[in-house]
Amino acid sequence: MPDYNYNVYASACPSRIMFDSISNKWTMFILDRLRDQPVRFNQLLREIEGISQKMLSQTLKTLERDGLITRTAFPTVPVTVEYAITPLGQTLSSTVHVLIHWAEHNGDEILAARAAYDAKNKQV
Amino acid sequence: MPDYNYNVYASACPSRIMFDSISNKWTMFILDRLRDQPVRFNQLLREIEGISQKMLSQTLKTLERDGLITRTAFPTVPVTVEYAITPLGQTLSSTVHVLIHWAEHNGDEILAARAAYDAKNKQV
Repeated sequence: MPDYNYNVYASACPSRIMFDSISNKWTMFILDRLRDQPVRFNQLLREIEGISQKMLSQTLKTLERDGLITRTAFPTVPVTVEYAITPLGQTLSSTVHVLIHWAEHNGDEILAARAAYDAKNKQV
Repeated sequence: MPDYNYNVYASACPSRIMFDSISNKWTMFILDRLRDQPVRFNQLLREIEGISQKMLSQTLKTLERDGLITRTAFPTVPVTVEYAITPLGQTLSSTVHVLIHWAEHNGDEILAARAAYDAKNKQV
């Protein structure tokens, strides 16, 4: 076990509650999309397939509250809202980026492992 | 958007389905615990606070099917079952380790950001 003040393995530790909210695909997709440049709400909604407007709003609010992203509203008609990563968020975002794209890089190997496992356990 | 064959942002892509199962706190806790050495079922159950026996069994089976861990049963009485990371799992596990411990390292900053956000939005 690590010797920080925080211990993510202890279910009552604040770092565990943070990790609960980080270890969520929508949170990670948003952090990854904002990694390189600020992005508008509607663009995030389009780019992250399968996310609902409500889930996107909620997740953005949590990330803003945690100091990982900022929200800027521009006085256009209709109002344009843009989200940007903070320096703290950036430290998380680069790790999340590696994790997200790991699934793409290792897709073939995983599919092969699944096929082998299923063939072996077919009789069950 | 990346130019691999797989695109994790597309909801029907196999890599998205894999990412759905990776981006889960239990999966990440198990991968992190197995990073340095094989671990027995009961030890995982004790070390990962809050995980149920059923959730642990299911998550281990998924990880085994995906080729990320191996399961070895020893003919003791009662049977001892040990899980170990595979070379493929190791490539994921080191990233997961950074992500998990990010929450511990940055606990203070996040708690401060939350307090500031809540103070600013108190009137709402």
